[in-house]
Amino acid sequence: MATALILLAAGQGTRMNSDLPKVLHPIGNAPMFAHALASGAALAPERTVLVVGHGADQVAAEAAKIDDNILIARQNEQLGTAHAVLKAKEALSGFEGDAIVLYGDTPFISEATILRMVEARKTADVVVLGFEAADPARYGRLVTEGDTLRRIVEYKDASEAERAITFCNSGLIAAEASVLFDLLEQVGNDNAAGEYYLPDIIEIAWKTGRTATAVACDEAETLGVNTRAELARAEAIFQASKRAEALENGVTLMAPETVFFSLDTYIGRDTVVEPNVIFGPGVTVESGTRIRAFSHFEGCHVSMGATVGPFARLRPGAELANNAHIGNFVEVKNAQIGEGTKVNHLTYIGDAEIGDGTNVGAGTITCNYDGVFKHRTTIGRNAFIGSNTMLVAPVTVGDEAMTASGSVITSDIEPGALAIARAKQVNKPMLAVRMFEKLKSLKAKKQKGQ
Amino acid sequence: MATALILLAAGQGTRMNSDLPKVLHPIGNAPMFAHALASGAALAPERTVLVVGHGADQVAAEAAKIDDNILIARQNEQLGTAHAVLKAKEALSGFEGDAIVLYGDTPFISEATILRMVEARKTADVVVLGFEAADPARYGRLVTEGDTLRRIVEYKDASEAERAITFCNSGLIAAEASVLFDLLEQVGNDNAAGEYYLPDIIEIAWKTGRTATAVACDEAETLGVNTRAELARAEAIFQASKRAEALENGVTLMAPETVFFSLDTYIGRDTVVEPNVIFGPGVTVESGTRIRAFSHFEGCHVSMGATVGPFARLRPGAELANNAHIGNFVEVKNAQIGEGTKVNHLTYIGDAEIGDGTNVGAGTITCNYDGVFKHRTTIGRNAFIGSNTMLVAPVTVGDEAMTASGSVITSDIEPGALAIARAKQVNKPMLAVRMFEKLKSLKAKKQKGQ
Amino acid sequence: MATALILLAAGQGTRMNSDLPKVLHPIGNAPMFAHALASGAALAPERTVLVVGHGADQVAAEAAKIDDNILIARQNEQLGTAHAVLKAKEALSGFEGDAIVLYGDTPFISEATILRMVEARKTADVVVLGFEAADPARYGRLVTEGDTLRRIVEYKDASEAERAITFCNSGLIAAEASVLFDLLEQVGNDNAAGEYYLPDIIEIAWKTGRTATAVACDEAETLGVNTRAELARAEAIFQASKRAEALENGVTLMAPETVFFSLDTYIGRDTVVEPNVIFGPGVTVESGTRIRAFSHFEGCHVSMGATVGPFARLRPGAELANNAHIGNFVEVKNAQIGEGTKVNHLTYIGDAEIGDGTNVGAGTITCNYDGVFKHRTTIGRNAFIGSNTMLVAPVTVGDEAMTASGSVITSDIEPGALAIARAKQVNKPMLAVRMFEKLKSLKAKKQKGQ
Repeated sequence: MATALILLAAGQGTRMNSDLPKVLHPIGNAPMFAHALASGAALAPERTVLVVGHGADQVAAEAAKIDDNILIARQNEQLGTAHAVLKAKEALSGFEGDAIVLYGDTPFISEATILRMVEARKTADVVVLGFEAADPARYGRLVTEGDTLRRIVEYKDASEAERAITFCNSGLIAAEASVLFDLLEQVGNDNAAGEYYLPDIIEIAWKTGRTATAVACDEAETLGVNTRAELARAEAIFQASKRAEALENGVTLMAPETVFFSLDTYIGRDTVVEPNVIFGPGVTVESGTRIRAFSHFEGCHVSMGATVGPFARLRPGAELANNAHIGNFVEVKNAQIGEGTKVNHLTYIGDAEIGDGTNVGAGTITCNYDGVFKHRTTIGRNAFIGSNTMLVAPVTVGDEAMTASGSVITSDIEPGALAIARAKQVNKPMLAVRMFEKLKSLKAKKQKGQ
Repeated sequence: MATALILLAAGQGTRMNSDLPKVLHPIGNAPMFAHALASGAALAPERTVLVVGHGADQVAAEAAKIDDNILIARQNEQLGTAHAVLKAKEALSGFEGDAIVLYGDTPFISEATILRMVEARKTADVVVLGFEAADPARYGRLVTEGDTLRRIVEYKDASEAERAITFCNSGLIAAEASVLFDLLEQVGNDNAAGEYYLPDIIEIAWKTGRTATAVACDEAETLGVNTRAELARAEAIFQASKRAEALENGVTLMAPETVFFSLDTYIGRDTVVEPNVIFGPGVTVESGTRIRAFSHFEGCHVSMGATVGPFARLRPGAELANNAHIGNFVEVKNAQIGEGTKVNHLTYIGDAEIGDGTNVGAGTITCNYDGVFKHRTTIGRNAFIGSNTMLVAPVTVGDEAMTASGSVITSDIEPGALAIARAKQVNKPMLAVRMFEKLKSLKAKKQKGQ
Repeated sequence: MATALILLAAGQGTRMNSDLPKVLHPIGNAPMFAHALASGAALAPERTVLVVGHGADQVAAEAAKIDDNILIARQNEQLGTAHAVLKAKEALSGFEGDAIVLYGDTPFISEATILRMVEARKTADVVVLGFEAADPARYGRLVTEGDTLRRIVEYKDASEAERAITFCNSGLIAAEASVLFDLLEQVGNDNAAGEYYLPDIIEIAWKTGRTATAVACDEAETLGVNTRAELARAEAIFQASKRAEALENGVTLMAPETVFFSLDTYIGRDTVVEPNVIFGPGVTVESGTRIRAFSHFEGCHVSMGATVGPFARLRPGAELANNAHIGNFVEVKNAQIGEGTKVNHLTYIGDAEIGDGTNVGAGTITCNYDGVFKHRTTIGRNAFIGSNTMLVAPVTVGDEAMTASGSVITSDIEPGALAIARAKQVNKPMLAVRMFEKLKSLKAKKQKGQ
């Protein structure tokens, strides 16, 4: 059956103490709501509706960056979860199939759990996801009889016997879209807060001749994020799972707890990652590479046998071919680095293409920006860029060409040529000694004068 | 009532295995004794006396850096805690009010606890701070009757019944200064070690018609530091509390355990701190900034909306205006960076002032040192400093001026002008190829010759 | 009595999911098998035999790097532990004394344990190392009567009573070499796997009139490594022990969990190590130095009173004299840095020697590579290298000489002289403004054109 996701992302998150809408706070360098979305993708949903409220435009904009097919439903007033889900009705008009309600601030729901919820839909009209709570505290309780879910009782309304129940409500619900909206429209707000509560649909379901069941998941999957401390804890859980996955895949992490991944990081087998490495979004690293300590990656690709770092930074668009070598205090941005090419020390390569087998000397800089435009530098194969060469883009250095150390290169260099732009060295005997004596006597005078 | 602090800081700390006096070992980049002092500041004490002994001059010098009103009392021989406190008598001559005895190696006493001790002084002449010990081990026991403190028994002198007591002596004491010194003068040294013990004053107090009581604090506050391992643990506790405080204040710490604070660090709300960031002493960061990974701060200020790092170092006197951008492998020292100004790559800015909206190219260096003096560089607004510009200070670059990449600037540049100091590029066809052939044939010969 | 080590290192380690032979995966930057070898060195063994199989040549090559006296025995087919040990027979031909069987993937066996095994040889012909297992699971059980070891029972062959035994087999065995090989030759492979099992020698020993005993060690010493996760855990255990050792020796580690050591790292007393420091192989640091955050060391020596970092990298052959100062974004390789000499910012010093009291300006680079050969740079005492000086090696800068900022130095500089290689600065009034206007209008046109 076709499926649709309804992802609630309207809350303010007051306890985050932030101007940023709660669901945009990142985990693994992706906005928090993207995690539930990624798990929901296991259903290959026909439609996805994001219900936004606080910071609606900002949240919608971030959603569009992830997938511009995501439908946006606006909940301008926050009148409860039932009210929020009902806002998705219009976006799902004409849709026939199951709708699954997920939460933007509940990032750890697994694909498997969502699939099990949909599976359970075969046996009941409404499926609620529950969990055995170690400390049920004030969670809503799921009142069940065998597989049947009778109702959901809020803690404050629960009897002593009901409070003894440890099977609690995660808030996730699956139902056929038309049934879901039908039930939601019957939810009232006759309560202290004047809000429309999603759990109320279970009692309405039974009253209107439908059935309900509950599916259980591990409590860890239902972890929500309400404060910065909980955000940090969620990030830690996410990182732990990515680290375990990398180890499982045959990656060596010398100190797993010091390596940070993004939601979409991919690291190949037999890659060795030293301590203190950060993989920002959009990074792929092939097998058999060595990622040295204190390296920082974003939006880049590292091919087999390459070595990066220590103290290297690959920025978006950096692409290293096989066996390339990027050394310390080197920044590479929007640049292709050829096979076996070496950029080892104190260098900035931006908006450039460098061929295979080239050696880039220490202190080299591609001067890619003229204050208004960015320009490209092209360097051929087996070239030798002398230390501290300034490559004033746009400029081309031919195959097997060479630049003399300390040259500012403003014109193209033909293949095989040596380019030099350098003043002649003059040695002035004893001048250093005389200058220092003068400076020191000046200093002595000043100190005396005080 | 007026209050005075007596901070004992004379011990050698043999188990630290160090030439540095124990109380100077730092926690949160402040000497250990500064922590108790900071908590004691909640009393706004009229006088503060530091009792120094081992490394007296060194400790006194560090105290003067923190607050040059701190009075120094010297305990040349270490003859016990009572002897140490008595050394403060002269420095408190003429002082009327309560004296509170703190310890330089007990950094976690809270402000609240000290305030409660002073409050308890209303009900008794002598107030002792105790704690419920999880493992009382060899701590002195507080023998109480209701709120009354009868005496303090050393473990070795305690009866079986007294050893069963878990309420232990922290060592902190509050009493009116004149009473305290009167009691101390009656303490004897008729014991195995021949030392004068501070706890003895409780029995003397009762004998001389005074009353005593005990106030309880959490055991964690009484943690002392005696070894490097305990120092590391104390540092960890300090860091954990600063991290929690930052999260509470609305700061995002992606990986709290990798961010290190100093005692005086201040970070504004909605600032995002990536992993592996170190805040040395004297750092303030305003709201809404982004502190990227692998950044290092000391004695600097970062204004709203600024971005720093990754791999950036701000040293003392660095001041970033709003929306300034300091990028990778950049060091800034004693310099003002204007609003929206960018210093993005491989640069050293020292002893400088840069106006708003200026772009500083990669590899730029302010040559601020001539071997004897340091000189200043001044750069105007909306200037464009080409890559690898050497700014030989003292030198001024005007508003909207530009330097050509690779130029050594030794004279001032008027506003709007372009300065260039560059040799002409010459391309020598095929010379690179010929040079390489020569080098390679030389290498082949050498290898053959071996 | 003379001793010999037999180190089994033939396994593939399938669960490592790696092309690298298991025993070559590193812990503390030394191949895993080097750890058991280091402990075995306590015996000053007359011979050491490494039994290699999977990746035999690679393992043998690594062993030769550690000690080229290590004898290599090849086990081409893996037919069980008894079969593996027997392969060492030829390499021990003529050897008289005790042989101790160790495992390349069991890195935490202590010196003390190995010494105790040899000591126990005085009381029995065969000594087996056992441990009390917290969870005996499927380990082989040691069936003992008092000090006597009756036999080793595999879990699958064990009776209920035997399964209740918690004293388990570590696999380590000591016996006189001739006895050991005699027993091994009697081991059969009449079992499901068709393998020759080392534990079988105990029963054979008793049958042939020999005696056996068991020695116990802590379970932690017997930890084996079979997966990347276990490798990471082993690394963590190793690091924890090195950190504790450093603290014990009077080193301050501000955040011990962020400092990484190698097997051979040595750090002197009263050295302060800030967070995030990595000591690769071959590093010695004398007393009283300061190692600042984000520093990376390999194969180098740091003398008393020196300061390194933050963001510094010392590579093999870097040697700092007393009070030298290496600052941020500085790389030093194969170079001697003189007493009190300062290399503070954005510099590459490779293949060089710098005298005492010299100041190396920011952005300095030793251009040590011509594309084929590496050349040396020599700088004297009390010299002053201006910022962004290129030292094109081979080149010598005399004592008290100076280079002007931005100079490319290709010829030697005599003592006391000033060398300058610099184009004259020309200021072109208003040209910057006109160039920007042109670029901006071009941009406007382009945007319009789109």
